[in-house]
Amino acid sequence: MDNLVDLGTIAPIQVWTGVRARRVEGRQVTLAVVELDPDADVPEHRHPSEQNGMVIQGQLRMRIGDDERVLAPGGTWRILADVPHAAVAGPEGAVVIDVFSPIRADWDQLPRFAVSAPRWPPAG
Amino acid sequence: MDNLVDLGTIAPIQVWTGVRARRVEGRQVTLAVVELDPDADVPEHRHPSEQNGMVIQGQLRMRIGDDERVLAPGGTWRILADVPHAAVAGPEGAVVIDVFSPIRADWDQLPRFAVSAPRWPPAG
Repeated sequence: MDNLVDLGTIAPIQVWTGVRARRVEGRQVTLAVVELDPDADVPEHRHPSEQNGMVIQGQLRMRIGDDERVLAPGGTWRILADVPHAAVAGPEGAVVIDVFSPIRADWDQLPRFAVSAPRWPPAG
Repeated sequence: MDNLVDLGTIAPIQVWTGVRARRVEGRQVTLAVVELDPDADVPEHRHPSEQNGMVIQGQLRMRIGDDERVLAPGGTWRILADVPHAAVAGPEGAVVIDVFSPIRADWDQLPRFAVSAPRWPPAG
């Protein structure tokens, strides 16, 4: 297992419709770079893993419990274990970081795409 | 504690000389956005927290154990617990994500700066 890899060499998985993730997986923490298509909808859900994150590109409307905000690049979230949350991508989609602990071993069961160029960073 | 905040409202701490971090801190995972000045040097060190990360802007030469690579945006790392690692920022500095589990409670003791505009994302 290589510990220094470029995002573009990691096969994405499908997490929700229109939502793909590339993972850097350790034993205690999952670092995911998540691409959301325009207006992609992440329905309310919850999980035992704590989840922190940040928008890298585009916009995302994030709801955590009863709090809701539209976030642009640099907008962050903290979702403690088992707290219900939902999100909707902006009209141009979004690229975000999501980090989880414990790791999302359940994601190993998700559909896997072929390796492809990520939407971020820009090529070149 | 607010769970939806902009990076620019988080007071940075000084982690190393020329290296500042803004933290989104949970109970199980620290998400840090780290700014490195040009040529900033992170000497070899190790810690019980696992650490994954990715370059957002600029370049970073990262060494993990005996592996070493120069990483650009989208370049990632995985550092398991207690593995020695070191880094040097490129001539234009770098902005990177570092995520840790367990959280870096030891960082609470580090010097804290006033809130200021982050180097990334670009203002506007």
